[in-house]
Amino acid sequence: MAEATVRIADSDIGGDNQKFKIRRLEISDKGKGFIDLLGQLTVTGSVTDEEFNQRFDEISSYGDDHVICVIEEESSGRIAATGSVMIEKKFIRNCGKTGHIEDVVVDSRFRGKQLGKKVVEFLMDHCRSMGCYKVLLDSSVENKAFYEKCGLIHKGIQMSKYFD
Amino acid sequence: MAEATVRIADSDIGGDNQKFKIRRLEISDKGKGFIDLLGQLTVTGSVTDEEFNQRFDEISSYGDDHVICVIEEESSGRIAATGSVMIEKKFIRNCGKTGHIEDVVVDSRFRGKQLGKKVVEFLMDHCRSMGCYKVLLDSSVENKAFYEKCGLIHKGIQMSKYFD
Repeated sequence: MAEATVRIADSDIGGDNQKFKIRRLEISDKGKGFIDLLGQLTVTGSVTDEEFNQRFDEISSYGDDHVICVIEEESSGRIAATGSVMIEKKFIRNCGKTGHIEDVVVDSRFRGKQLGKKVVEFLMDHCRSMGCYKVLLDSSVENKAFYEKCGLIHKGIQMSKYFD
Repeated sequence: MAEATVRIADSDIGGDNQKFKIRRLEISDKGKGFIDLLGQLTVTGSVTDEEFNQRFDEISSYGDDHVICVIEEESSGRIAATGSVMIEKKFIRNCGKTGHIEDVVVDSRFRGKQLGKKVVEFLMDHCRSMGCYKVLLDSSVENKAFYEKCGLIHKGIQMSKYFD
């Protein structure tokens, strides 16, 4: 499994002195605020180290078929943004593959630096390199303009059911 | 991996004399019109036996985390309906899981017998048994009423990008 690591130049993220590194999730990222960051997206609950490590191992076992991207702010060592993608293997489209992007969030302290766009681009590049014919994600109406800037277009509607 | 097999009573599917069996996809289902059926949903291309078998093995390697459901008409031995679900392991929601339903289609010759609803219920039951906190799928606006009958509600919008 290749660890695609890309350094984001200052010029890409707004011209200040912060340095960010974009890479795959590592097991040490729980200590860098990864779960706290997800808490800005939705309920996370209190994930113990043991639970985190077990889930990390489960996801890692899928190799390139389930990738979680993080952006780390180098000076603080904190996770500033994240997003994930799962590759679905299909029979349609000549046994094609689709990428499902999920759980994209940027720390409120780091918004306005295009970190969300970098995360989505990282995940879309991964899908392209995996031979996917498309990538898709579910969005709120409020985030539609953001994903359009990332090159996605509004296609259908999302239906869901929460179990009790 | 448990093979959940359920016989659909005549009374469940409209009262005529047809008998249907709902089960997981088997490797012999290519010969029973599985790919032809998917062709009623979208482009499939000409999938060779070798390509089918390879993709079947890849999907099967995920065990209960990627399940394809089919309904077979017993008298003809043809696949009348299908749908798939992929289980996503997350860190949010106390390391929760989400089910992604995809590629639901009913053969035009067998519509009006609630086979689509049976497929979605089979997949949702699987998600529940796997401990998912929710299930979701992308739909066209035209199919919204069908999925509402299956117990799902319209939540967000689907964004997508097709690669060249």
